[in-house]
Order: sequence, then C-alpha cells, then structure tokens
Amino acid sequence: MLIVMKPGADAQEIDAVVNVIQEFGLRPHSMPGATRTAIGITGNQGPIDGRRFENLPGVAEVIRVTKPYKLITLDLRPEKTVVRVGNATIGGSELAIIAGPCAIESHDQAFAVAEAVQQSGARFFRGGVWKPRSSPYAFQGLGEKGWRIMSEVRETFGLKIVTEALEEPHIDLIEQYGDVIQIGARNMQNFSLLRRAGRSQLPVLLKRGMAATLEEWLLAAEYIMAEGNYNVILCERGVRTFTQHTRNTLDLASVPAIRRISHLPVIVDPSHGTGSAYMVTPLARAGVAVGADGLMVEVHDHPELALSDGAQALTPSEYAQLVKEVRALREIATPTVTESPTQHQAA
Amino acid sequence: MLIVMKPGADAQEIDAVVNVIQEFGLRPHSMPGATRTAIGITGNQGPIDGRRFENLPGVAEVIRVTKPYKLITLDLRPEKTVVRVGNATIGGSELAIIAGPCAIESHDQAFAVAEAVQQSGARFFRGGVWKPRSSPYAFQGLGEKGWRIMSEVRETFGLKIVTEALEEPHIDLIEQYGDVIQIGARNMQNFSLLRRAGRSQLPVLLKRGMAATLEEWLLAAEYIMAEGNYNVILCERGVRTFTQHTRNTLDLASVPAIRRISHLPVIVDPSHGTGSAYMVTPLARAGVAVGADGLMVEVHDHPELALSDGAQALTPSEYAQLVKEVRALREIATPTVTESPTQHQAA
Amino acid sequence: MLIVMKPGADAQEIDAVVNVIQEFGLRPHSMPGATRTAIGITGNQGPIDGRRFENLPGVAEVIRVTKPYKLITLDLRPEKTVVRVGNATIGGSELAIIAGPCAIESHDQAFAVAEAVQQSGARFFRGGVWKPRSSPYAFQGLGEKGWRIMSEVRETFGLKIVTEALEEPHIDLIEQYGDVIQIGARNMQNFSLLRRAGRSQLPVLLKRGMAATLEEWLLAAEYIMAEGNYNVILCERGVRTFTQHTRNTLDLASVPAIRRISHLPVIVDPSHGTGSAYMVTPLARAGVAVGADGLMVEVHDHPELALSDGAQALTPSEYAQLVKEVRALREIATPTVTESPTQHQAA
Amino acid sequence: MLIVMKPGADAQEIDAVVNVIQEFGLRPHSMPGATRTAIGITGNQGPIDGRRFENLPGVAEVIRVTKPYKLITLDLRPEKTVVRVGNATIGGSELAIIAGPCAIESHDQAFAVAEAVQQSGARFFRGGVWKPRSSPYAFQGLGEKGWRIMSEVRETFGLKIVTEALEEPHIDLIEQYGDVIQIGARNMQNFSLLRRAGRSQLPVLLKRGMAATLEEWLLAAEYIMAEGNYNVILCERGVRTFTQHTRNTLDLASVPAIRRISHLPVIVDPSHGTGSAYMVTPLARAGVAVGADGLMVEVHDHPELALSDGAQALTPSEYAQLVKEVRALREIATPTVTESPTQHQAA
Repeated sequence: MLIVMKPGADAQEIDAVVNVIQEFGLRPHSMPGATRTAIGITGNQGPIDGRRFENLPGVAEVIRVTKPYKLITLDLRPEKTVVRVGNATIGGSELAIIAGPCAIESHDQAFAVAEAVQQSGARFFRGGVWKPRSSPYAFQGLGEKGWRIMSEVRETFGLKIVTEALEEPHIDLIEQYGDVIQIGARNMQNFSLLRRAGRSQLPVLLKRGMAATLEEWLLAAEYIMAEGNYNVILCERGVRTFTQHTRNTLDLASVPAIRRISHLPVIVDPSHGTGSAYMVTPLARAGVAVGADGLMVEVHDHPELALSDGAQALTPSEYAQLVKEVRALREIATPTVTESPTQHQAA
Repeated sequence: MLIVMKPGADAQEIDAVVNVIQEFGLRPHSMPGATRTAIGITGNQGPIDGRRFENLPGVAEVIRVTKPYKLITLDLRPEKTVVRVGNATIGGSELAIIAGPCAIESHDQAFAVAEAVQQSGARFFRGGVWKPRSSPYAFQGLGEKGWRIMSEVRETFGLKIVTEALEEPHIDLIEQYGDVIQIGARNMQNFSLLRRAGRSQLPVLLKRGMAATLEEWLLAAEYIMAEGNYNVILCERGVRTFTQHTRNTLDLASVPAIRRISHLPVIVDPSHGTGSAYMVTPLARAGVAVGADGLMVEVHDHPELALSDGAQALTPSEYAQLVKEVRALREIATPTVTESPTQHQAA
Repeated sequence: MLIVMKPGADAQEIDAVVNVIQEFGLRPHSMPGATRTAIGITGNQGPIDGRRFENLPGVAEVIRVTKPYKLITLDLRPEKTVVRVGNATIGGSELAIIAGPCAIESHDQAFAVAEAVQQSGARFFRGGVWKPRSSPYAFQGLGEKGWRIMSEVRETFGLKIVTEALEEPHIDLIEQYGDVIQIGARNMQNFSLLRRAGRSQLPVLLKRGMAATLEEWLLAAEYIMAEGNYNVILCERGVRTFTQHTRNTLDLASVPAIRRISHLPVIVDPSHGTGSAYMVTPLARAGVAVGADGLMVEVHDHPELALSDGAQALTPSEYAQLVKEVRALREIATPTVTESPTQHQAA
Repeated sequence: MLIVMKPGADAQEIDAVVNVIQEFGLRPHSMPGATRTAIGITGNQGPIDGRRFENLPGVAEVIRVTKPYKLITLDLRPEKTVVRVGNATIGGSELAIIAGPCAIESHDQAFAVAEAVQQSGARFFRGGVWKPRSSPYAFQGLGEKGWRIMSEVRETFGLKIVTEALEEPHIDLIEQYGDVIQIGARNMQNFSLLRRAGRSQLPVLLKRGMAATLEEWLLAAEYIMAEGNYNVILCERGVRTFTQHTRNTLDLASVPAIRRISHLPVIVDPSHGTGSAYMVTPLARAGVAVGADGLMVEVHDHPELALSDGAQALTPSEYAQLVKEVRALREIATPTVTESPTQHQAA
C-alpha cells in the first residue's frame, strides 16, 4: 500500500496518517519527495482496505500494491492444475468439450443431443435442470424429472454430467447423480453457494459474472478453494458492454491474463458469449486459438423449438463441424508451458 | 412480436416461419411491403422468446413488442405504492431516510451511529450483519452477535431495522427481529432468495444489480411480487461502467424511467453509488431532486477505522448536514402525480 | 512512478530495471521489502509512460503516481474560474442556462425558440449550424444559411450564441459571428481542433466524449489551455454504458470529482444525457442539485416535427417550467467554496 | 418503422400519430390488436428518425425496422470486396499483415523494424508520423521528418505504407508518399475527415471507435463510400468496457457480425486491442481463427525504450514467431464463402 500526500500537505497531516497506520499494527515508511510525500505501508499479512485512508486530510491518493488472492496464484502452485473427472481431464493436453442443450426438455431431446455429443468424441454433457431465468414467467427447467433424464444419459452414453446449481440443495443432488457442479454467472458472487461448492468432492465449473473484473472472478474461485476444493475450472462466457450485436462481449484476453496469474484451467463458452448460432463456431475457433483448455457449447436437435436460448443453439450437424474444426486448430495451437509468461529480454 | 424477413426472402422461407409460429399455437400476420415482408405475431398471453426465430432461413430480424412484466406496471396499478413499516412510510409524501454503518462492528459503534440517525429524524437504521465481500479473507460481518446489537438498537432508538439477507435462513431471522429485508446487488438475480422474500410478510428493499438493465431489475421485483409480496422498494445504487473516478456510476435517470412504467417506490444509495465520502452529499441532493422517494446512506462514527467501506461513510456531523440539505430540497422538489408521465401535447 | 518487482525477481533483474530508469535521466530508489522489492522513480518533470517497464523481466506491476495535467488543476489556480461572455458569466454565482434547438432549421423555428429562451431569462442560445450525424443520409444542418439566422437571433434577442465547430474553418466563422465555441463529444479528442480552439479569443465549451474517462476529458481541456485559452467550460453529457432506457448515462458524480481537481466551471446537458423529453426536467434538477454551474437544454417549438433529436427536445412551455424549477433549487443548493474539498477530520 | 400505442390509447391519440406520419409524406398502417394498436409506416426511402414520435400522447414505443446503411451491405454487393494495394491485397485469400512501430522515432528504429517486417513476408508497414496522444505533453510524432523516413522505408523495402491522418492536410501528404490512409479510433466520427478520405484514390483503413456500436462503425464506412471511395478496410481494435486487465476489450464477434451484413474486409489489431505484449500473440491467433482478413501488429526493436505504447510492442523475434503461428492457423481456418451467412435449416 502506498499513500500519496497532496503537494501542500503539512507535517501534522502526515503525522495523522502515520498514526492511523500504526493503530492498525502496520509499519509506515515516510518517503519525502521534491513536491510531495509518499508513505509506504508494510507489515500486513494480507491486503488492507486502503480506501479508509482516502478521506484523511492531506491525502491525494491511495495505491494498492498487494494482490488480495493466494490459493489461485502461480506463486502458490507454479504448475497448471489438471482437473480429473473419471478418465476425462480439463487443463491437460486434451481439449475438453462440454456440450448439450441449454435445458433438458424431454427424454427424446436429451437423448438425441447426447448421441451427437458422444459421437463427436466429447466427454462432458451439459444440460440445465433448474434454469435461472430473468422472468418468473419463463420456463424454469424440469427439476426432478429433468434429473432422472440426466441420470439415464449418464448411464447410456457414459458422458460426464455438468449441471448448474442455483441453491445449496441442488449441490446435494448433483453430488449423488452428477459429475461437475456448475456455478452460473448470476451466482458468481453468491458466497454461500460458493462455500457449499467448496465443501464438495466434485469439481466446480465457475462461470464469470456478467460484470465481473478478473480480480472478482479469481476471488470467487478463491472462496471455493479456501474451503478445501481445489478442482476449480474457470469459464469465460462474455461480459456485459454497450455493444448490441451480441448478447455478451466475449473477453478472450481473459485467457492469457489468467494464465499469467493462476494455475487454474480456463474454458470458453461461445454460446452465451455471443447469443447467436451463426457466431458460435467462429468464436469457438478463436477460443481454442487463444489457448483455452476447453469449450462449452449449446446443442439442440430442434433449435427453433427450444424452450430457452434457441437462438444460440447449434444443430447436431453444425456442432459436429465445430468439433472437427477446433480439433484441427488445437493440434497446431496447443498452449505450451513457456508461452504464457512471455516477456521481452532486456536490451 | 414482429419478424422482419430479408429483402430476398422467398415464399417458401416465409411459409416456414409462418408454420413455426402456428406450431406454438400463435397467430401469424403476414405484411408484405415494397422491399420486404414483415410477420406480426398475436395470440400470445405473455412474452415469447423470439430469439428462436432468428436463425430460420430468410429472417433478418426479430423485434419484441410485448413487455415481459405485469405486476410491477402502472397498467396493473395506476396509483403509486406506499410501503408502510409501522408508522413510517416509503413512497408517500415523506422522504424516507435509511442510514447506518456498512456493517455492525460493535455495540459502541452501532449505538453512536444510531443516535445520530435518530437525531436526524430518519426512521430507518441500516447495518450489515452478514456481509457479502469480494474476498474470502475480508471481514464477513458479526453474524449472530451483530444481530443482538441490532435488536438493542431497535428497542432503544425505535428505529426500523433494514438488513441484507444473503441466504434463505437469514430471512427467517430478519422476520423475527427486523423490519425490512434487503436483497443486495450481487443477489438481484438469486431467484431462490427472491422467491423466499416474496413469501415473507416484510417489505423487501431490492438493490439494482451491478450490470442490470432496467428490465432485469423490474423482473427481479416481479419475482418477489409473483409470490404474493407487493411491498417492494427499488434501490438505485449505481452500475458498473468504464469510469474510474467512482466505484459505480449512479444512474439517476432510472428514477423517472421507473416512474413511467411502475407503481413501486424507488430510493437512491449515494454511498455505494459513488464510493467516496466527499461525493455522497452532492449525489444525495441530486437523488432527491430527481424525484426519488428516499435515500440510503452509510454513516460511521470513525470512518477511518471502519472494517468495511470506510471511504464512503459519512461522519455523524456530515450526515446531519446532508439530512438538512435534502430536506430543504425536498420541500421544493416533491414529485407530483402529474409529473412523471409528462408528454408533449400534439401540435 | 513505482515499479513493483515480482516476489522471485533476482538482483540482475532489479539492476536491469534500474539501468533503464537511468537511461531516461531519472533517479531510481530501490526499496527492498520482506517479500518483494519496489523501485520508486523521481526526477521527472512531467508524467512518464510507465507502460514501457511492464514487460521487463521480473516486473510485476507499474504504478503511476504523478498526474498528467497541470493547467486545469487547483494546484495551479486554487480559486474557481469564472468565464465571462459579455455581461453573462459561467462559473460564478449566476446559474448559466444555454438553451435552443438541436439544429437551426428555419427562421421561424429559431425565432420562436429564441423568444422562449429570452423570456426565461437565460443568457445563451444554442443551435447547430453544422450537425455531426452518425448517418451520411441524415440532416446535416443548414450551414451558411443557418449562420445568417443565428446572427439575426443574436441581434434581435441579445442572446449569446453557442455553436458547435466540426472543423477548423467553422471556428473562423464563430469568431466572426458567435460567442462561444462548442467542441462536441465526438471531437473531444480531435486534437487539431482542440489546438485551434486554444488559439481563439472566445470561450470554449468542451463536451465530454462518449467513452472518456475523467482524466482524458481534463487532458482535452489541457490541450486547449496549453495553447493559451484559459476560458474552458466543461459539459457533462452522459457516457455510453450497457443501459438501454436512456441514450446515454448521465454521470453526475463527475461534477464533484472535477471540483476536487480543477478550477474550471462544469455544466450539465440533460437533453443528450437522457435522450427523452420526459426525463430532461428531473435530470436538470439533479444537475443543479449536484452543484453544476449551469445547464444546456434543447428546446423546439414543434418537437414532433424536428429534423433531429426531436425525442429529447422540450416544448417552450415545458422549458419555462424547467427554468422555474431549477432556479428555485439553485437558491438553496448553490455550491459554496468550502463544499467541494470536504474531508473528514481525523479522529 | 412500427409505432406501438399504449393499451389505453384512444382514437384521438391514434389519429394524431397518423396525421404526423402523413405530414412527413409517409403512409401509416393501423393494426388494431386485442390489447393495443400498432401503426406501421411505409413509403420512406431511407431511415426515419422515429424518436420524434416517442413523446406523442398515447405512444408506448417506437421500433425501427429499416437499417440506415446501403453501400456497405451485402444487399448491394453480395461478393466480398478485395482491396488491392499494388500487388498486395486485403480481403482476398492472402492473410494481410500490417506491422511496424507505433510511431516512427528515428531512421535506425524504422529500418530495424522494417527489415523484420519484410523478412516475415508481410506486405504492409505501419508507423505513426503524427500521433494522437491523450496528453498535450506526450510525444506527438516526428511529423515531416518522420515522413521522410517513411519514404525511405517504402523505397528500400518495397513495403506498402499505412499511416494515420489526423487532419485533412495529412491526407494530401499520404496521397503523395503513402499507400493506405488510416483513420484512427478517436476520429471514427470526424465526419469532415471521413469525407475527405472518401474523395481520395487511396484505400482507407477505418478503425472502430472506442465506444462505437457496429452500426455507427458501418455508418462511418458509409460516409467514406458515399463520397465514391469503395476501398474501405474495417479494423477491430477493441472497445472500452469496465474490465481492467486490458487496455481495451477486443470484440472478436464483430468479425462474423460484419461478414453477415457487409462485403467489406475486416482486420484485427491485437496490440491496441489488449495493450500488453504478452497477450498480442494469443489474440492475433484468435483473430485469424475467427476469420479476420488480416492483422495489424506493433513491433519495436527496443520496446522498453519506445516513446509511445512500448508495453504493447513485440520485439522482432516475438513478431516473427507470431507470423509463423498465424500463417499455420490460417491454412486450416481460411474463411469460406459459405460460412458467414450460415443458418439452420428449418426442421
């Protein structure tokens, strides 16, 4: 933490700041300059909320130096985390593909899509059983009934099941019948839910919130890890911006940004990230090319009849083409260990 | 719903769209134009997810006409809702002031602030008992112990207690010992929590999400009302934008925008809406001048020692000055019935 | 400037950074800490582009301390600037009102509106002669002809003329026939135009760019002042965000933020700031309540027939009511000298 | 255009709207529904500013149908535009690479970088001669002197020269000594400059504005084309959002979105689009994978000594590696004719 005093700050004001720092058990380091004084703070174990200094007389600015996270960092664990789900992996050399409908609507729909997913060679099947919908009058998922269909899909096709939990009891059910707990964008800062997921044995797929900074997203992962569950997969699914040609703006730069800070695997969701079927394949290719560890893609056997998010679902044949394209790309664009922390050599 | 076909769409493509509309039990209305055909849809009870039409061949654009909400609208209830909490009101002629610390930290702190709140003539005391914090390592609230302090404040000062619930069991406790349930910005689309609040007898103060459109915010209120609880108070607290001189950008235009659509009362939170103490009073004045029904303001007896959000808390004397200023403004800026739906008279 | 090294940075990496600093003629100050080293930089006259250090090996972060502007600051000039235009002022005790149509469309239209503006007691008449329009097919202003109408308005009604310049030759004409040069949002970083305005004797009204940070906006003012023209008026007109209920999001917190940094007067434009007539009066009230030095408002005698921006124009009678309301507010909300740099007293 | 009346709108209000439509020489089509009336408008040649109807009594909403652009559309020209610059092309089968320093700083720097660019097989050399800088005190480019260096680079290396014009006289000079006129993000809506570029014989590279919607960006291209210059290249360089881990957020979905509407070629600038050297290569790969026609990349022989934007410049060897990677990707990800307007086949 660095506190920059105003040019005209007097000795008394500087002393007052120094005193407040000491009251918190920290060590102040006064650094007088030509035009103004800066005061460094050391002795803190973790981050300090420096905003409290902002309104003290004579203070011009407060600058944070220490980062607020620990467990997610490469400092803690320099090699990349590989999440294992049975014999499938996310974060390793394999490109992880999670595909399926937005919501489970019927046995026939789920099976038709699951067959396409299995045939593509993907290992994970997604499908909403409880759906978070903006409107209370929109389709809210099949609940229990959807869950029975999911179990049959799992057994019949041998796919790993990824389902979103909206509340704590949902996690109990996923633990019984599913494989990966998904925390959705709207719940990225539902801290009770994060803590419950952190006490689970199952891996957690954590979607980025619609307006989450990278730091907030990583801190949400830190919440899960702080409870003991280190199997966290980050999922970039676009953020809300002023643009109107897509539902969200897919922020692919988050992938190399995370690589530079964290050991956690990160995948990309081009379906929510764009909201339109015709954009999904190009952005899936981009996601793989930027170095993501996998993709999450929505597929529906009859997108025009889908009960939710039909506009962004691919047909089985469009999906098969997507998988073919991204697999080819992956072969030449596999992220290597040396790539992420690339830096210039000093002259 | 209006489906606009591309200029070159042929009869077969138009027929295919018409067929899908009929499959959903709706009525298509073909309107051929000079350069392109548009197809109107009627017969729907509520809104339709028109995005599913977007990828049909020949479709240029899908335009939604029906709004997705009902209970919150002036169509349903043309006169403004006045929420009553004991003998205090929000949404009536009185300017509602909700003030208190970000978090309850100790008996002394709570009582010092509550005294200032009572002296100002405000009727509501706010204070976090469970705190949603971005970092798992930040102060998370006193929990049970904080709650006991709150009960004493309520009894001693006769103030109505407003507290944020982070999970369903918190609402049980607020129902026993508090007066108003607050749903925070991060939980605006925690639909399980909204439904639980909708089954409560207590009024609900619903903060706008950090990246919520007006429609999403109003639909969150609709979730609460759909369960039977009509006592909802909306709270504008700023949205996330690219700007860096404030913590959030206070979107005061949401106040007249809501007035034009909804009967629900709306208040403004200039503390979270700016994040800096020196901006709170000017923006509180602006909130009252724009026509808000009340204010929510953070006050701390020693802001520089606060365990959370110290930078945006006012001292008791700054707060007293704020109340004096906004009361004077309110007298000349009280919103009248005729103002909100103002329209030009046609020439 | 503060360069924070990574925890594992070695002596050689630190030396390399120190050497680059010295190559620029600056002074490095190494500050070894428990876990990492920080290197302060002094000796710079103005700001340094610290981003160049970001990719040196071992560097974790580069933190800027010095602000990049000078002339606009309270450090340079502690008392507020009052811009004088004949016998009218902006930035003094008077509330400056600039009103008129979006574009000059005809003699009759201009005179009808000018009469309403004069009657309201406002001193400034706005009106576009050259219009920046997103589409090349939209109405682009009357040009020369519009300018002749403006001159007549000026002579007949004694109002000061405010017109937007889109290119340098426009400024020549405004210097001959007008009173205040307006630089529009789209040209806020048209540096050639800013420099030309900086060489003028006329005051310059500088609108905030649609996506401008406070710093970029103030630096645009610095461009004008660096050429010798100190009569700059800042105009907040809303920024682009994800919201859809307004054309722009009016960022009223910029008013107290500017007050804390700069001596320049700042006014608010609730017409562009909202885009809808029914919101203009409430937001104008909010602008005055937050402490702005004036307002810029669009008025049209027949908004429904306007050739541009009809949806946000007030009728003359709506405008008269607005002026009445904001004058009443101003009397009790006049910003005082002591208000802006308010700070807590240390405990 | 579709005007939706409120549920309670009476016959008189509907008639008033119909009358205003007729006053503009357009044809109203009243469509009474179960709960409300909608009024379609036909007979317009181009788009109408529908906002003027928004404040008429009884109007609930105004919905635009016609798009405001013509020349940029696939309706006008179904096959993709290939821009030819001597024997190099942009928009054809070749991946166009434009590389060079942010600003020309010296003969040695320019030649060192140009050599690397030539060796990579790229055909275009970029380099700023006049620099738009946020601060008036930052390095503003070498001007005339830089231009002489550029001419030598052109002659010596046979590279096509791409330079940004900040004002109309700059275009005169580029026409004499350069090959492609660049319009920067800050000038995307500098309509005088766009019109001047539209009267040039040289191709124009049009960067997306920092807060430009797709529509505004395409309309800026329409400005250039409306003057007769059809050789326009669009350049995605990121937009401003709330995120802080990059300088801008690269919106790669704009590439397929443009493909669906326009015949113009589109390239991606991962240097400005991220602002950090370590992200440039991954995002360049993503840009090629999403289907862009080319890349614009900043290269510097000594990034840590660069006078501007050093943090985002690649070293010559990093750049050589980038070119190798994107060429390999391009071979398997070349956008095909059928891809862009992909649509589902109706069931």
